[in-house]
Amino acid sequence: MIPDLSITTLLQAYRQGTTTPEEVILEAWQRAAADDPTIWISRPSLEQLQQSLQALEGESPDTKPLYGIPFAIKDNIDCAGYATTAACPAWSYEAEQDAFVVGQLIAAGAIPMGKTNLDQFATGLVGVRSPYGAPDNAFNPDYISGGSSSGSGVAVAKGLCSFSLGTDTAGSGRVPASFNNLVGFKPTRGVLSCSGVVPACRTLDCVSIFALTAADASYVFNLAAVYDETDPYARRRCRLHEMKWPPRIGVPRMDQLDFFGNDDARKLFEDAAQMVVTMGWQIVEVDIQPFLDTARLLYEGPWVAERTAVVQELLAENPEAMLPVTRTIIEGGLKGSAVDAFKAQYKLATLKRSSQLVWGEVDALLMPTTGTIYTKAEVEADPIQLNSNLGRYTNFMNLLDLCGCAVPAGFLGSGLPWGVTFYAPACDDALVLDCAAHFHASLNLPIGKTSVLSDAAPLPTPQTVAKPKSPLMQIAVCGAHMEDLALHWQLREREAKFVRHALSAPCYRFFLLRAKGRIPDRPGMIRVSDGGSSIAMEIWEMPEHTVGSFLQGIGAPLGLGKVLLDDGSQVTGFICEGIVEETAEDITHFGGWRSWLATRQLATV
Amino acid sequence: MIPDLSITTLLQAYRQGTTTPEEVILEAWQRAAADDPTIWISRPSLEQLQQSLQALEGESPDTKPLYGIPFAIKDNIDCAGYATTAACPAWSYEAEQDAFVVGQLIAAGAIPMGKTNLDQFATGLVGVRSPYGAPDNAFNPDYISGGSSSGSGVAVAKGLCSFSLGTDTAGSGRVPASFNNLVGFKPTRGVLSCSGVVPACRTLDCVSIFALTAADASYVFNLAAVYDETDPYARRRCRLHEMKWPPRIGVPRMDQLDFFGNDDARKLFEDAAQMVVTMGWQIVEVDIQPFLDTARLLYEGPWVAERTAVVQELLAENPEAMLPVTRTIIEGGLKGSAVDAFKAQYKLATLKRSSQLVWGEVDALLMPTTGTIYTKAEVEADPIQLNSNLGRYTNFMNLLDLCGCAVPAGFLGSGLPWGVTFYAPACDDALVLDCAAHFHASLNLPIGKTSVLSDAAPLPTPQTVAKPKSPLMQIAVCGAHMEDLALHWQLREREAKFVRHALSAPCYRFFLLRAKGRIPDRPGMIRVSDGGSSIAMEIWEMPEHTVGSFLQGIGAPLGLGKVLLDDGSQVTGFICEGIVEETAEDITHFGGWRSWLATRQLATV
Repeated sequence: MIPDLSITTLLQAYRQGTTTPEEVILEAWQRAAADDPTIWISRPSLEQLQQSLQALEGESPDTKPLYGIPFAIKDNIDCAGYATTAACPAWSYEAEQDAFVVGQLIAAGAIPMGKTNLDQFATGLVGVRSPYGAPDNAFNPDYISGGSSSGSGVAVAKGLCSFSLGTDTAGSGRVPASFNNLVGFKPTRGVLSCSGVVPACRTLDCVSIFALTAADASYVFNLAAVYDETDPYARRRCRLHEMKWPPRIGVPRMDQLDFFGNDDARKLFEDAAQMVVTMGWQIVEVDIQPFLDTARLLYEGPWVAERTAVVQELLAENPEAMLPVTRTIIEGGLKGSAVDAFKAQYKLATLKRSSQLVWGEVDALLMPTTGTIYTKAEVEADPIQLNSNLGRYTNFMNLLDLCGCAVPAGFLGSGLPWGVTFYAPACDDALVLDCAAHFHASLNLPIGKTSVLSDAAPLPTPQTVAKPKSPLMQIAVCGAHMEDLALHWQLREREAKFVRHALSAPCYRFFLLRAKGRIPDRPGMIRVSDGGSSIAMEIWEMPEHTVGSFLQGIGAPLGLGKVLLDDGSQVTGFICEGIVEETAEDITHFGGWRSWLATRQLATV
Repeated sequence: MIPDLSITTLLQAYRQGTTTPEEVILEAWQRAAADDPTIWISRPSLEQLQQSLQALEGESPDTKPLYGIPFAIKDNIDCAGYATTAACPAWSYEAEQDAFVVGQLIAAGAIPMGKTNLDQFATGLVGVRSPYGAPDNAFNPDYISGGSSSGSGVAVAKGLCSFSLGTDTAGSGRVPASFNNLVGFKPTRGVLSCSGVVPACRTLDCVSIFALTAADASYVFNLAAVYDETDPYARRRCRLHEMKWPPRIGVPRMDQLDFFGNDDARKLFEDAAQMVVTMGWQIVEVDIQPFLDTARLLYEGPWVAERTAVVQELLAENPEAMLPVTRTIIEGGLKGSAVDAFKAQYKLATLKRSSQLVWGEVDALLMPTTGTIYTKAEVEADPIQLNSNLGRYTNFMNLLDLCGCAVPAGFLGSGLPWGVTFYAPACDDALVLDCAAHFHASLNLPIGKTSVLSDAAPLPTPQTVAKPKSPLMQIAVCGAHMEDLALHWQLREREAKFVRHALSAPCYRFFLLRAKGRIPDRPGMIRVSDGGSSIAMEIWEMPEHTVGSFLQGIGAPLGLGKVLLDDGSQVTGFICEGIVEETAEDITHFGGWRSWLATRQLATV
């Protein structure tokens, strides 16, 4: 049997032939039928499933990167053939076509397993505000699942699908991740299309991804992040800022943390910060007041009017069709004036500016995803305030144009999972995924509600996920540019990375170019047709766009050309004008610059 | 006497000692005292002027780039020691410090000549909505000056100062330029700080620059464009998109143009489009409907509420303090709801997206600055509609996040000036300034109300104004990379520019490397200590960040190193490994690759 439905695991099993999409999909479908019915608002018929499976015929994981991967779709995102309800039956409509993002995933081979329950109109972080019922937390049915993407969270945790789509305006893509031991990735606003998604706040909405690991979330994200020119809020995937790995991580000042009395959560956050230190990352205490102030703006300010704009007709014609709690909140948006709306935007601009100071000091922020978790009974008793508590560390995110990845951080005494989120400015999607992946692996936790540990799946490394903004170019060096030697700083300042040691083809003679002025001793490799040797080299790689300035600093008689290696390949590297042969000392017999340096040091001693 | 007060002229005169700041400033001050008093709301005392002049002691144009340059400041921008009225005396306050931008200019040596009249609260494009009177058009007192930056426009045209600051939300920095034969530059939103500026619509406002030439406007802009971290809407000067010169210019479909019955203006616009063709620029007819639709949103939509937000207290407590027309407009902002405000933003997002299609086809748009011009009497008779007509081609600009430069385009039959505007997306400030500068020079018009012609002042060239996004790097080439030869496309695709012909130092021998596979014949220059010659080379420059990929494509035995030139300097350029000396044909006696190619062609014939 397959230990978990992670994408990595499934693709491997399909490749090895130990199972088939048909087996996996049917079993997941049966499991879903037997499990908590409040997870789903609609599920495919067996016929629909067969149709999905037929589309895979003749395909494989090599032709379709999500070949046979089951996924769930929050029911405020269109999937052709299903109603889109936004958890409000009176408001629902039949989706004629897939939302843009759903279309990308199905085209890549993923199989829709149904539309999941949510807090009505994606308004809430609790998961109990739905006429379709309140899904049980995957770890304890007395507890809330979190919301608004309640069903999408629980479905992945319980192994009913490999990943799911949520939406995230105030935290709906992160809170259910925290409460169900999942990774919840909220990308940069606009990078996943919102075409075919019911708006909550159109200027802030995001499609989000729930998965068992950050590697899975990253994989799905890379496939779904296609620019959609029909979505006026779409943005092209943007460049990363250049940073050094390991990252500098900001944590809130202790007095700014509020766990609403949950000391286990406080302890887990302290452990998370300690883990960051253990991993060798730099940690910096920062003032998160502008973030907390922004969080309050979301529901206290005019953005509620965006929710009102979506259901204005329903509110006027059939207000009873909405849950009382949802209606109360959304009606609030009718009160504000346009003047208020602009004034709140000015306030946000000021808060944004002061929040940005932090990004000079740190690459990402680490915060609790939520301060605590509640039982269904607790939320029923105090539906507005407890919901509001859950947004303390999430509500600011889209207002400030950040991206973030929620990731499990351990278990509370109650046995319920609890998580943290890595936040960074828009465009740093790969960075927060990297941080989450490494952090998750280090904790060695079971993933979802499985017994598989979080380091079992291959994790993306910063090199593979965080593509630098320019292609890399390999340069073979043979002298003072080698590691730790006199001119190595020229590689270091371009963030060059060591690739490997290499030997040149045996057709070079090696000459000593004596130090001159501020230029240290350097060697020159001169290719000859006769009597050459192999010379020890190091191959480094640096961003291609920095090679011009590197070349600028290279003095005659050296230059960059092609160097032949002993394996028959050639690589860009140091060459030397032949003119030096006449005067320079031939040191070919040393076989390399380090050997020559060693003898010189002996001589000095 | 000085023919005009352009910055270029003044700095040259100061350098040559033909006049002094004291002479110029005092004369400008006396001229202003004798001219139309409605241009100014406040002017410096002689004592204040003396203080400004004293600050220049020991300085020169070399130490202060605006040394002794007189400028005017629209009276909604703070200047320490003056009231800021926004043309509403009851609302005014004493400015305790300079607006950020004013501070930059004074620090650079510029001398404030006073605060200029404006349409009250910068609401209007006509220049007659002020309790301080309606400044006369510089060319005919019966006509409006244009607004809202009325005094700032007229003061520059009449030679009372060298340049002036305006503001531009709906067109206030462009309309007075058109009506007074000036350049009016509206930079990318946020690049000039709005700290110390009375807001009109805070999310849209810009500080703008009036000048006699685009060169002057560009000069002031480059000095004033300092990032102000205290302004929440400030943006750093951004990169240009990379484009080829000459630019592709979009012009509206003829049926989308409305000159409100002014056939002279229509004729001037046709001439302007013809001039673009004459200059060798590409012209493309485009659909400007999304721009026109956006223009209407500005006053028909909720953005008026931003103006309301500024004067909410005044409206409540002392509404009679405002001009009736201004009050009527600004009171309109009280009506809208927050829901309306967000819905209008959605509409704007959609219009923005459809307007953006144009930027795939053209680098800049050319439009009339206004369709026509009106007399003061005409505007008095129909104050709202005629004002609205003037915004047809200007109102969309800040909503769509564009930058633009208004520039004179000739004179109407009535003797009044008329102008056009070059528009481009945010960050293309240098591009629109370039377009305006070249266009203006080609028309050979008198600048401002002078008899100096628009090609008399040295104009910036695209090379000097439009800095490429990476530094340029010079590369000396000696073979197939030279202009029009087999590998020249490798330079062309990097947009390399020819710098000059050069001769190498007489220490090279020149070898023929025979064509191999897809590599054409190439030469190699080998430095020798004896018996070398000078070789003909071409020096090209390309963006430094593209050099790495260029190097990538260079095959052995060639590479890039340092080449010695006959003037003793050295430059990065092609070098060749010595190994080829043994086998390649020595063609040194040809003195260069073109000479060798010529003989080969002869041989073929």
